[in-house]
Amino acid sequence: MILTFTVFGTGAVGAYYGGRLAELGNTVHFLARSDYDTIKESGLKIHSPKGDIFLENPSVFNKTDDIPPSDVVLIALKTTGNSILREQIAPLVHKDTALLVLQNGLGMEEEFQSWFPENPVLGGMCFICSRKKAPGIIEHLDYGLMTLGALNPDHKDLRDEVGRLMDEASVPVTLVDDLHEARWRKLLWNIPYNGLTVALNCNTQDIMTNPDSRHLIRVLMEEVIAGAAVCGCVIEKEAVEKMLIFTDKMTPYEPSMKLDFNYKRSMEIEYMYDRPLKEAASRGYVMKSVFMLRDQLKFIQSRY
Amino acid sequence: MILTFTVFGTGAVGAYYGGRLAELGNTVHFLARSDYDTIKESGLKIHSPKGDIFLENPSVFNKTDDIPPSDVVLIALKTTGNSILREQIAPLVHKDTALLVLQNGLGMEEEFQSWFPENPVLGGMCFICSRKKAPGIIEHLDYGLMTLGALNPDHKDLRDEVGRLMDEASVPVTLVDDLHEARWRKLLWNIPYNGLTVALNCNTQDIMTNPDSRHLIRVLMEEVIAGAAVCGCVIEKEAVEKMLIFTDKMTPYEPSMKLDFNYKRSMEIEYMYDRPLKEAASRGYVMKSVFMLRDQLKFIQSRY
Repeated sequence: MILTFTVFGTGAVGAYYGGRLAELGNTVHFLARSDYDTIKESGLKIHSPKGDIFLENPSVFNKTDDIPPSDVVLIALKTTGNSILREQIAPLVHKDTALLVLQNGLGMEEEFQSWFPENPVLGGMCFICSRKKAPGIIEHLDYGLMTLGALNPDHKDLRDEVGRLMDEASVPVTLVDDLHEARWRKLLWNIPYNGLTVALNCNTQDIMTNPDSRHLIRVLMEEVIAGAAVCGCVIEKEAVEKMLIFTDKMTPYEPSMKLDFNYKRSMEIEYMYDRPLKEAASRGYVMKSVFMLRDQLKFIQSRY
Repeated sequence: MILTFTVFGTGAVGAYYGGRLAELGNTVHFLARSDYDTIKESGLKIHSPKGDIFLENPSVFNKTDDIPPSDVVLIALKTTGNSILREQIAPLVHKDTALLVLQNGLGMEEEFQSWFPENPVLGGMCFICSRKKAPGIIEHLDYGLMTLGALNPDHKDLRDEVGRLMDEASVPVTLVDDLHEARWRKLLWNIPYNGLTVALNCNTQDIMTNPDSRHLIRVLMEEVIAGAAVCGCVIEKEAVEKMLIFTDKMTPYEPSMKLDFNYKRSMEIEYMYDRPLKEAASRGYVMKSVFMLRDQLKFIQSRY
C-alpha cells in the first residue's frame, strides 16, 4: 500500500509531520495560506533536534481546489476554525480518502465522520513542542510522538499502515484501539495546563512549583478522570501522579492555548472544554472545576 | 447605659463608624498608626453624602497602652493581621470590655471569644463603600448599613444598645439573632465578587455583564448556600437572584480584595475562603468552585 498525503494547515504541527513524511519521498501536498508565497519561493524548512528538514520544492497550494486527490488528509488546523472546515475540506475528500485528525480536544473525529460518513477517520494525538518561527520556517523543539487510533475498528489496517509510514519517517507512533479513551487521556494534560496557564497568566513550571496551583492541577485531573469514567473511558488514578512527574521534568512551557492567549487569538475552548463537559454532563457528571475554568476562559477571551 | 468606644484601626471603615459615633458626642478613642501625626495635628475628616464629619481634636493614639479603658472596642483592621491581633488588642480588653468585630469573613468572633473568653463579642457586617483618600481623610461613597449580632445570646441587650447608639449616629442598623448565619449571608456576596474580580482582574460590572462569568457567580453562590446549609445556616435559594439584581444596580465596583490586589497587599484569603471551606468540609461538603478560586488567589498572591 502506497499512501499519499495532503496536509491541511501547514503550521507548527502539520509542517512537521508532513515534512517528515515528505523527506522520505512520500507524496505530500501542503495547503498553506499566509506562508504560501514564501514556501513556493524558498521551500519549507524545519529545524529539529532530530535532524533538520529542507523541502526545496514542496507540493504547495493555496487553494484546496487545485490539490490532487490523496489517500490521507492530515487535519492540522486549530479547532477554532472547525465550524467552517467541512466546506473547506470537502474538495479534498474523495471516495476512500482518509481523514487523520491531529487536533486537540474531544469529538472532532465523530464530527468529521458525520460530515463524511463513508470515509475512514483516524485520530492522532501529537505530543510535540514546535512553533512557527517565520513564514515557511518551523522550529521543532522537543518530543514528536504520535498516538494513533481509528474511529471505526474496520480501519485498523489503515491505522497500522499510516503508523508504519510515520514510524519510517522518524515519528514514533503508539497505536491505540480505543481512540475515544486516548482523547480523554490527552485531555488529562490539556485541560488543566492549557486553561490554567491562561487563567493564571504563567507557564507550566510556575503552576507546578506553587503548592496551591499544583493542588488545582490535581483536582482538575481527578475530575477529568471521573468525567472520562462516566463516558466509559477508564483512566487509572495513578495517571495523575505520572502526569505531574512528567510535567515536572518538562522545560517550562507555554501550551498552545497560552500562546493563543498571548497573541489574542481565539482559544480552543469549545473542543477542549465545552465538548468534554457536555459529554460527561450528558452522562450525569458535572466536572465543576473544569466548568469554572471554562467560564473564566470565555470571560478572558471576551475581553481581548 | 452610656457606652464608650475605642476604634482599633482608623481606616476607611473604622474611621467612618467611629466618626459617626464621635460627632454625636460619644466618647471614642482612635488607634491610628501611619496617620497618627496627621490626625493629631489636623484632625479627622470624613467626606460623606450623608453629611461630612470633621473631628478637630479626636482622642487619637498610636499605642494601645495609652488608651483609656472603654466599653466597646471596634475591630476595624483587615483579617490579614489577625494572627498578631490578640497580643495587640490585649491592653484594651478589660473586664467587661466588649469586642465588636467589623471584619469580613467567617470565624473571627469565635476566635476573639477563645482569646478573651469572659468578654462579650459582637459582630458587625458593614455594607459600605468607603476609602481612605489621604492620611486622616476618609471618603465615604455610599451605603453604610451595619448588620449587628451577638455571638452569645446573653449579650443581646448589649447588642441592642450598641445598635441604638449607631442608629442615633445615622448608621442604619439591622439586628440579627443568628450571627453565624449573618456571616454566611455576607459571604454569599463576598466569596464570588471579591475572588473573581481579582482572578479575572476586573470590576463587578464586568463580571455581571458577561454571561459566562455571571454563570460563575451563580455557581459560586449556590455552593455557598449549600456550604452554609451543612453548617446549619439556611439561606433561601432566592437570595442568589436578589444578590444578582442588587449587584446589577450597583455602581461598577472593585471590592476590598480587588483593591488589596491592585496595591499588592495581602488578601483576606484565610477568613474569607479558607475558614468557610474548612467549616463546610468538616461537615462533609466541599465547595469545589470556591476551593478552586481560593487556590487561584493564593497563587496570584504568591506572585506579587
